[in-house]
Amino acid sequence: MLHPKSIAIVGASSDANKLNGRPFHFLRRDGYKGKLYPVNPKYAEIDGVRCYPDVESLPEAPDLAIIAVSQKLAAAAIAALGQKGTPVAIIFSSGYSELGAEGAKLEQELLQTAQSNNIRICGPNNLGLINAFENVTATFSQYADKTPIPGPVAFASQSGAFGTGIAALARGRGIGLGYFINTGNQADITLIDALIEIADDPRITVLSAYIEGLRDGTELIHLAHKALDLEKPLIITKVGRKAAGARAAASHTGSLAGEDRVFDGVLRQHGVIRARNEEHMLDLVSAFTCCPIPKGNGLAMITQSGGAGVLMADRAEELGLEVPIPTPETQAKLQSVIPSFGSASNPIDVTGQFLAEPKILSESVKIALDDPGIHCCIVWLQLLHGSADLLVDVFKGIQTGVDKPFIVCWLEAPESALRQLRDAGICVIGATERAVDAIAGLVQYSQARARHDGQPPPPSAHKNEQEPEQAMAIPSVRAAKLLEDMGIPLASAELATGPDAAREIADRFGYPVAIKIESPDILHKTEAGGVRLGLTDGESVVVASQEIMTAARAYNPAAKIEGLIVQRMVKPATELVLGVRRDPVFGPVVMVGLGGIFVEILEDVAFAAAPVTARQAELMLNGLQGRAILDGVRGKPPVDLHALIQVICDLSRFALAHPEIVELDLNPVFADSNGIIAVDWMMMCGTPNTTNRKAVP
Amino acid sequence: MLHPKSIAIVGASSDANKLNGRPFHFLRRDGYKGKLYPVNPKYAEIDGVRCYPDVESLPEAPDLAIIAVSQKLAAAAIAALGQKGTPVAIIFSSGYSELGAEGAKLEQELLQTAQSNNIRICGPNNLGLINAFENVTATFSQYADKTPIPGPVAFASQSGAFGTGIAALARGRGIGLGYFINTGNQADITLIDALIEIADDPRITVLSAYIEGLRDGTELIHLAHKALDLEKPLIITKVGRKAAGARAAASHTGSLAGEDRVFDGVLRQHGVIRARNEEHMLDLVSAFTCCPIPKGNGLAMITQSGGAGVLMADRAEELGLEVPIPTPETQAKLQSVIPSFGSASNPIDVTGQFLAEPKILSESVKIALDDPGIHCCIVWLQLLHGSADLLVDVFKGIQTGVDKPFIVCWLEAPESALRQLRDAGICVIGATERAVDAIAGLVQYSQARARHDGQPPPPSAHKNEQEPEQAMAIPSVRAAKLLEDMGIPLASAELATGPDAAREIADRFGYPVAIKIESPDILHKTEAGGVRLGLTDGESVVVASQEIMTAARAYNPAAKIEGLIVQRMVKPATELVLGVRRDPVFGPVVMVGLGGIFVEILEDVAFAAAPVTARQAELMLNGLQGRAILDGVRGKPPVDLHALIQVICDLSRFALAHPEIVELDLNPVFADSNGIIAVDWMMMCGTPNTTNRKAVP
Repeated sequence: MLHPKSIAIVGASSDANKLNGRPFHFLRRDGYKGKLYPVNPKYAEIDGVRCYPDVESLPEAPDLAIIAVSQKLAAAAIAALGQKGTPVAIIFSSGYSELGAEGAKLEQELLQTAQSNNIRICGPNNLGLINAFENVTATFSQYADKTPIPGPVAFASQSGAFGTGIAALARGRGIGLGYFINTGNQADITLIDALIEIADDPRITVLSAYIEGLRDGTELIHLAHKALDLEKPLIITKVGRKAAGARAAASHTGSLAGEDRVFDGVLRQHGVIRARNEEHMLDLVSAFTCCPIPKGNGLAMITQSGGAGVLMADRAEELGLEVPIPTPETQAKLQSVIPSFGSASNPIDVTGQFLAEPKILSESVKIALDDPGIHCCIVWLQLLHGSADLLVDVFKGIQTGVDKPFIVCWLEAPESALRQLRDAGICVIGATERAVDAIAGLVQYSQARARHDGQPPPPSAHKNEQEPEQAMAIPSVRAAKLLEDMGIPLASAELATGPDAAREIADRFGYPVAIKIESPDILHKTEAGGVRLGLTDGESVVVASQEIMTAARAYNPAAKIEGLIVQRMVKPATELVLGVRRDPVFGPVVMVGLGGIFVEILEDVAFAAAPVTARQAELMLNGLQGRAILDGVRGKPPVDLHALIQVICDLSRFALAHPEIVELDLNPVFADSNGIIAVDWMMMCGTPNTTNRKAVP
Repeated sequence: MLHPKSIAIVGASSDANKLNGRPFHFLRRDGYKGKLYPVNPKYAEIDGVRCYPDVESLPEAPDLAIIAVSQKLAAAAIAALGQKGTPVAIIFSSGYSELGAEGAKLEQELLQTAQSNNIRICGPNNLGLINAFENVTATFSQYADKTPIPGPVAFASQSGAFGTGIAALARGRGIGLGYFINTGNQADITLIDALIEIADDPRITVLSAYIEGLRDGTELIHLAHKALDLEKPLIITKVGRKAAGARAAASHTGSLAGEDRVFDGVLRQHGVIRARNEEHMLDLVSAFTCCPIPKGNGLAMITQSGGAGVLMADRAEELGLEVPIPTPETQAKLQSVIPSFGSASNPIDVTGQFLAEPKILSESVKIALDDPGIHCCIVWLQLLHGSADLLVDVFKGIQTGVDKPFIVCWLEAPESALRQLRDAGICVIGATERAVDAIAGLVQYSQARARHDGQPPPPSAHKNEQEPEQAMAIPSVRAAKLLEDMGIPLASAELATGPDAAREIADRFGYPVAIKIESPDILHKTEAGGVRLGLTDGESVVVASQEIMTAARAYNPAAKIEGLIVQRMVKPATELVLGVRRDPVFGPVVMVGLGGIFVEILEDVAFAAAPVTARQAELMLNGLQGRAILDGVRGKPPVDLHALIQVICDLSRFALAHPEIVELDLNPVFADSNGIIAVDWMMMCGTPNTTNRKAVP
């Protein structure tokens, strides 16, 4: 699909302004070297190229076909192409799943036609693709109204219109897109499939994508690992951040597993840089294209404006970048080149004097970047249209003299200077905070690469193809056994058949104890009056047990009561929540968060896909808003991080080992410097691929 | 200063490329109608205009003077101008407080020279000002390299270089700056002074400023009130957001009163729109210049891309905007104009079909804006260079047909279309999220205007000119008396002279009670073993009292012990912190936050300057991250908001009535549906303008 030696255009038109005429026009205009086969019974030739009445009459099976006919004719064309031996087709035709259930059915039929005729499809409802290296302008996108300029960036988009806009913005910034591909409805070939292929092209150094949703998250993880292995940054903009936020608003933690939070967690976990919007993505793409990867997070800012320096320092602090004070040696060197009314601190103010003496600027940048604590640099300036050529030379000189990343932030720069700097491979960003955001992306990626251990991606996890219609609670003691087998620490619990048995267990445990009702039909034990805490002697255990059973029977007379859980009381400590979910995209995911109001009000939880490594677990914890609580506050001891990380990893192993567990909540989990212990747990089991659900045997 | 009929340029040069030659050149080039008096003994005339050897020989006192001589000569020039009768001078000369203590001394001397010669000064270290209406280009800023185009926006900047960059960016967007003024070191005339004057000009409808720091916050509040009265939005970018953040990192709440949080709180309180950076500011300025003020927060998005719609909806939700589903009537109307494969929901997808039938777009916008729940609209599109003129006509048609605000978000728009739309007064923004941010600014301002009651600004509060070097704790019972006099509810407390007296008070209060040590020398009572809670009978009160006194004497043998505080125990409820601080810029400010980890870890507090109205207090509460806690969580009852608001207002009255109180902490304050009650308080008194500090009598 990406490097076809011949292309058929089914439904080609001679009108270059029409959707079905555009690809032929573009391919010819851009000097596509392969063979072109327009197919349309209306024409004998188009623009001097022989036109074929149908697929059957083509002289060979083309490497790639473009389907530019209406939805009614598309399936037949696909079948004919498959029969002919064409391996892949791009389907422009619309009228499929984008229109709802009926269209989705047509799309499914189209896919089946393709599969039974042994042809892969890209689309339908697709704008096509561009391989600018080999002049494959197989698209009707407005972006191709001008000949695409190749470059080291691949950009794949699920949206046609927004993708076209982003590609055009990239061109406007002088970013060369080696590949631009739209995957439309993704009936077969996905955006991720395409990027996995493209990643191997040595001409591509930066991968980027605009995503609205994924069906298979393991594919994305595979791509992310491949990109890290190949040292090619992968930048993704995904929309739908807040729909999940809304779903997550309910106070029950079970509802927190909103897709977008999971998506965000998995991107972090696997070293993908997430961009907020198209502008942020292009800033990042531009920085990654031009800059080496920084070896630390120390940022120097070199300006001729104190104000811009403060604004950048504000932003740097927000994004977790360091703004180090240069070493005394560096400061001394800076002072020897900067005028006395400048500043050798950071932000470094070189004053306007550098226009008279350009060395002031170039030397300052080099001196700053020589400082061991400084890993990257932003040079800020504005206007100076009269000195544009001089400045371009200064920056080119810097570029050849340094091996750490630097970004030029130039407000209202002259167009010619921008062009020259971009041609020289220098990253220029025209807004103050955005320059810092781009640096932060470089640093984030450098940290991700340092964490990457080169291990192969985890094998595809069992993924539940559909939501379980019904899930059953697993009895507490049985659930405890499963968790303990995986090494997850729980407060000891035993099932008693009645009040006297409860007393015996409690005597053995030692006091105080808690007593809880055990029934598969009572999920909310407290609500049912089925929980008593802090019982200090045998007599109160017996009384409490009797009261609990009475209350439970009153709460739900039909409930099957299996007995009473006797549990050793645990000293309250820092409260956490841990859990496992089955995400429809990523399969088993692990959740960790701070308990109480942190999870209820701030929804302060982090997700990662199983399996989770220790480094990834640490990253999850560092992403929590209330992270500082783990270090101990209000006189509480710090949490044993090592133990907590181990529990997260163990939970992820548990999630992989037990595909039948659709939901697990450990809440609360008490954590202090002596370790981690789950005090209450709720485990739900479902067998999503059958309608017959049972508790785990 | 703003409308001079004559201008002298002291130190004028004939070289238009030199700093001291530029204002003369600009004023002549731009056709300044008043009289120009270059002053320089080196020339008899400049460019045909008579040049005077010195200020004394000028034929009249000019309305305005520009001082473009070195720092050494500036003071003499100011003195001479003052003697001549010139009311105000702009001082370009640098070498003053921007260079540190020595320069600050020179600046102080310069100011004294000006004051004793009865002349106001703007600067020093200043780029000058532009009044583009009257062609007063009294600046050497690069922005004036092209003739300034007047428009309805005033922009004042404390930074010369950054200000110039922002002004140039404004020009690049077609935003006309009626005034552009840089106030440099602000020895005398401040940026706020200038904007207060400019606000009266009927040609100005939008006020904007770039600020690095203020000395007098009451001036800003005065400006904010004036701007609200005149219905002119005031947009401020202030840098230094995070320096305060760093200072506030310590866990003691007393350190939270970082300047920037106070600044942010006061801007919110008084209806000023704060912009994050230069780009955000110009987006807002553009929106305010073009759009009417929305009457609600319902946003419709009209797109030809589903993806862009989701991105905008994400952002709208983040910013607290509504994305309402149109009424059935509106949807029916939309469906009658939109193709069947579009969407009449919100975001509204009009499909690409509108290029063939422009009415689809224009009618959709009008129908959407007719919906009672929709108050503003963004139309999103990209490229379409071939249809630019058509689209310009469509938007002009919409502009004349609707009275609600709409913004065009056009990615990679053709330059000519941008120009035409801007000329037609239509707001165009070139990035997806930024369009939503601009709408949010309009909505925020509309809410501020609705809150504004037209009352005159509060009188200048007593401001402590310097930090108190030493402050003394006011004894608890005396502090309680002061607070209770202002109606602030406290848990009853009485001072006992010894254990037996404590028992008598406790018997009177009823049990349980708390006993605390009272000593001006023991601020951290718990640390000193000086607090015992939940005492249930007289005997334990006596024992606890004895133990406390022993512990306190051991803790600090030199401490003067005034007795024991006996306090009625209050049932724990939702924990809040309240307080009063003396801000160096705004004087007395009130703080409110959620207690416990919210204040310690998240620093979740809001500030406002005293006096605080009920509406403003409500706004403070709504700004808290954990706001939802006030509505009751985890089974806790909701907080009595009415009572809480009353306490905030009372505290602000307290702060105004007691200028000698430099710090007050009420922590914890328990709040539930029955009311608010402070359980512990710490009040510090200082007399900052003398070195002799005493407890309040």
